[in-house]
Amino acid sequence: MPKEKPFILVSNDDGITAKGIRTLVEVMSEIGDVLVVAPDSPQSGMGHAITIHTSLRINRSDIFGAQIEAYECSGTPADCIKLGKYYVKTDRMPDLVVSGINHGSNTSISILYSGTMSAAIEGAIEGTPAIGFSLCDYHKDADFSHTKEYIKKITLQVLQTGLAKGIALNVNFPKIQEEPIKGIKICRQARARWQDEFDERTDPHGRKYLWAMGSFINHDLGHDTDEWAVKNNYISVVPSVFDLTAHRDIAVLNDEWEILR
Amino acid sequence: MPKEKPFILVSNDDGITAKGIRTLVEVMSEIGDVLVVAPDSPQSGMGHAITIHTSLRINRSDIFGAQIEAYECSGTPADCIKLGKYYVKTDRMPDLVVSGINHGSNTSISILYSGTMSAAIEGAIEGTPAIGFSLCDYHKDADFSHTKEYIKKITLQVLQTGLAKGIALNVNFPKIQEEPIKGIKICRQARARWQDEFDERTDPHGRKYLWAMGSFINHDLGHDTDEWAVKNNYISVVPSVFDLTAHRDIAVLNDEWEILR
Repeated sequence: MPKEKPFILVSNDDGITAKGIRTLVEVMSEIGDVLVVAPDSPQSGMGHAITIHTSLRINRSDIFGAQIEAYECSGTPADCIKLGKYYVKTDRMPDLVVSGINHGSNTSISILYSGTMSAAIEGAIEGTPAIGFSLCDYHKDADFSHTKEYIKKITLQVLQTGLAKGIALNVNFPKIQEEPIKGIKICRQARARWQDEFDERTDPHGRKYLWAMGSFINHDLGHDTDEWAVKNNYISVVPSVFDLTAHRDIAVLNDEWEILR
Repeated sequence: MPKEKPFILVSNDDGITAKGIRTLVEVMSEIGDVLVVAPDSPQSGMGHAITIHTSLRINRSDIFGAQIEAYECSGTPADCIKLGKYYVKTDRMPDLVVSGINHGSNTSISILYSGTMSAAIEGAIEGTPAIGFSLCDYHKDADFSHTKEYIKKITLQVLQTGLAKGIALNVNFPKIQEEPIKGIKICRQARARWQDEFDERTDPHGRKYLWAMGSFINHDLGHDTDEWAVKNNYISVVPSVFDLTAHRDIAVLNDEWEILR
């Protein structure tokens, strides 16, 4: 744990006005010096998109009161982290990057599509410890009250023990229930997927358009997965990488591929 | 290798009119039955974004001639793959998903931001073999002639030996040079990053706006990386995962975290 107050960069993907980021900023300002750089509009499903074809706007926001330095930005969650590190505050690198609390689950394969987790992973790229928090409740007025105690515990633990370089934590909270949360589980990403469907409609000018829909399909019955944890009222914590190399498959391809010889 | 002609779904992120996808479609139609579903406009840097807040348009395109079934779509590269599998052609699942050829490198950390690779990874999610091809030349009229022979070889090899479930290949070609390509190397993702900068400007109404810029920084000197390969006139092939779990770090966190006890 650094001796001075840790410097914490906060972002999200639901936008700066979302209830989830308000809760996260409350908890983080009990722990350290907070800088918020968050999208000015919802950016769910943006994956690890960055803005390269258009320019960016960034403006000071007083949404969290005079004590919290906050900015709203026209870009994606990954843009926000880059701006926080390389534009807004160039004299001090963050000790921690946090993102969320997302309104909705980011377990399993959803990590790929998640703007929340792209902000955390962007933070982790240079070795800064980073955590993305999500609540398995998509409602805009979702109840985050049960998450605060655990967010504080997890954050303090990460500041104390650090994280291996190149790791971001994907933390998912079950929706609030009558029974209290059972605890925290370190998990692997469940091997599940979205089965997509497209709802075909016709606009007033007679032209077709589609809405993407999907059902979440999980055949992975392991009790060590994030899906199992949140379904059973545990908080899931998945250590997640940005080195996508399938290291063990390098030798497989070297062995099997005739075109290499 | 399937006895009937393999069914190959093709997409990209530079848009259906790009030179790179034209080259890829040429090679693929020598190998199998081709279906193209590609963005109607450039989608570089879109990462693994999907369209959930707006509806989608998809229209038949004759850009590749009457022999090739092709569609242009208003969505992201990941949307295109979902549409290809679950909307356009629901009676036959692809034997292979290919994406590219990207105008520009997708080595190292760029895989995270790459629409080209998000299409390939989306293809791999359900166990379909998938390959993203990129050329280390951003020019819109880039010369792809040296890539065709190798794209055919790599594709036939993948159709013959298959790929482990959950793996997509990230293939990068060096820019054309006077000397011929030295060969194909199976590599790991180099541990490099983008150092971001923002160019501040003022619009005619006196308001600030920013352009993101970046310099690529590689301190990873390994000769087993994709960056080393393309810099030394080899084609790099990185087997890449969508399970982001840092499996070995599960035990580390279970050991170190006092809050779990």
